[in-house]
Amino acid sequence: MEVLGEHYRTIWLNDDNWSVTVIDQTRLPHHFQLTHLSSLADAIDAISNMVVRGAPLIGATAAYGICLGLHADASLESLRNAAKGLKAARPTAVNLQRVVDDMTSLLSPLPEYERCKVAYSFAAELCDADVKTCYQIGTHGLAIIEDQWRKAKNEGLQRLNILTHCNAGWLATVDWGTALAPVYMAHNSGVPIHIWVDETRPRNQGSHLTAWELAQQGIPHTIIVDNAGGHLMQLGEVDLCIVGTDRTTRSGDVCNKIGTYLKALAAYDNDIPFYVAVPESSIDWQISDGLLEIPIEERDGREVSHIQGQAENGELQEISILGSESNISNYGFDVTPSHLVSGLISERGLCEASSYGLRSLFPERFPDYA
Amino acid sequence: MEVLGEHYRTIWLNDDNWSVTVIDQTRLPHHFQLTHLSSLADAIDAISNMVVRGAPLIGATAAYGICLGLHADASLESLRNAAKGLKAARPTAVNLQRVVDDMTSLLSPLPEYERCKVAYSFAAELCDADVKTCYQIGTHGLAIIEDQWRKAKNEGLQRLNILTHCNAGWLATVDWGTALAPVYMAHNSGVPIHIWVDETRPRNQGSHLTAWELAQQGIPHTIIVDNAGGHLMQLGEVDLCIVGTDRTTRSGDVCNKIGTYLKALAAYDNDIPFYVAVPESSIDWQISDGLLEIPIEERDGREVSHIQGQAENGELQEISILGSESNISNYGFDVTPSHLVSGLISERGLCEASSYGLRSLFPERFPDYA
Repeated sequence: MEVLGEHYRTIWLNDDNWSVTVIDQTRLPHHFQLTHLSSLADAIDAISNMVVRGAPLIGATAAYGICLGLHADASLESLRNAAKGLKAARPTAVNLQRVVDDMTSLLSPLPEYERCKVAYSFAAELCDADVKTCYQIGTHGLAIIEDQWRKAKNEGLQRLNILTHCNAGWLATVDWGTALAPVYMAHNSGVPIHIWVDETRPRNQGSHLTAWELAQQGIPHTIIVDNAGGHLMQLGEVDLCIVGTDRTTRSGDVCNKIGTYLKALAAYDNDIPFYVAVPESSIDWQISDGLLEIPIEERDGREVSHIQGQAENGELQEISILGSESNISNYGFDVTPSHLVSGLISERGLCEASSYGLRSLFPERFPDYA
Repeated sequence: MEVLGEHYRTIWLNDDNWSVTVIDQTRLPHHFQLTHLSSLADAIDAISNMVVRGAPLIGATAAYGICLGLHADASLESLRNAAKGLKAARPTAVNLQRVVDDMTSLLSPLPEYERCKVAYSFAAELCDADVKTCYQIGTHGLAIIEDQWRKAKNEGLQRLNILTHCNAGWLATVDWGTALAPVYMAHNSGVPIHIWVDETRPRNQGSHLTAWELAQQGIPHTIIVDNAGGHLMQLGEVDLCIVGTDRTTRSGDVCNKIGTYLKALAAYDNDIPFYVAVPESSIDWQISDGLLEIPIEERDGREVSHIQGQAENGELQEISILGSESNISNYGFDVTPSHLVSGLISERGLCEASSYGLRSLFPERFPDYA
């Protein structure tokens, strides 16, 4: 995707062929600032301080974190130390755990002099694979948007209004995004789209990240508070919803950023298609009941009680927006039952949000039905 | 209600018998600060700058605004000038328009030497009548809470969890509140309640005002972002919802703070009773279809893009939380269709959210059915 008219991924190897650069997402949308990672500690800090976030990008950063650790010291002890430090940086991030485990298994048996080179190849391939996955989700999702736009145009509408929640965009992945990949492709192929961007409290990934990345691509969009989406749907101002997912069950229940369920209810109540972009890496084939089987992370209340923004002097500042005498609860995610989801968009194509639908795309995951 | 253990209304006549004091609600929850109103201009400023807000309290402040204008100059011209200035302070507030028109009709024909005294009597009676209305809503709503608590206790629960949105509490009225009056009475009569307080973006009346007034009464409560209510309902952590209303139709459609509709959908989806506290003054007997007939106010985008809070040095500060390249949409209210509402709580009692239900309490409003 583009920033100030220039193409960027969210993470890349520098010309020195060993250090890495990422975009500091904690400073968006106010400042576009690059951060140089030149040690394992830098990579761990970037992940734990949310300089990078989004499951695919966390995975890519962890892969380069292993590389940076081995670049300094390619011993088995160094590898184990890197793996342990990275896994602890965001304990609940599934991609991170998987990438680190895969790399540890791959690299441990190798002779010390080969480890570093193989690690860098692995990280580069991981990034390219992520771009390809997102691109494929984009092409499959584009078909949905084009279809909706044909209908909307026939009803005399001038633009197609798409609502999204949180950030499942370019910034959450290496390039393209998941939920936003179809949006970028639709824009590139001339569909007149307009995006309603949910603010997405408490961390405001919608208004901070999604709005910023859409603005950089020149895509018309409007920020709304999380309370507003239902009203816009009642008014007929939303034609389609597309969101991402952190974890989807084999039956099609979708765990995503807190508040997704409320938007799915409103879409259902107003007959608006509600799609979820689901890379295979986010499907948990072990579980079927999202409400009963997915543990929901409770996060620090400080995310609710404090907020960062730009003061009049242009500096970033954090202020407290609550009184001190109240408890705070801060669940990070919720579960949207599959019956509220119109369909899933994976890298292999579109399917119904059900085990039947997922089986049609991933038959190897349902061997009992063969 | 109490602040720091002392009883307060939200507005009162001072010992000098002509000037008025209100609580500056723009500084809550960080600072409890009283503001002295000693002129018509002070009253207009307090209303337009939202030092006072909430339809009943705006009405009461407008009544005392007329008094203050007449205290300085009891001429007919002064009365007309006061009426015009107050009406322009919050153009969409229905109570304000009604109070000002009623007082103008009452006071215009009077001899100049009587106007001021009659005006102060009117204002005092208006405040007392508001307290009585809220008290009655409280007693009728208490029956619902006690009923729910009996059920919850039989299921072995330790407390009754009630969710509310925005602030329909003491601070929105002269005393007691509408949606919160039953909550205060339940607490006073020993029902172990706990309140989930929706933050209520963009103006955060939930986390700023509702949380503060509950804390002052010592009522257990927890602040959540607006995105969280659906998830809590899925978990079984919400037993009852009670909200206020800005305008309710004769058919029981409820216009209230943006986001109310999303909570009503989630309550319906999870079989949780959803009640609305409706003083007769907020019922619009002229309209039946809330979605088609209630115009929804679009407010300044600055409410979304900027936020006030307390900096580390303890001072209140406003920061910008959005980038500058995005549009903002900011609808103030939404409409919850009557079929999602379990019942209405008015000063005359409880009823179904329908014209049938409202007719049972307000037969004089349905003369054709007599």
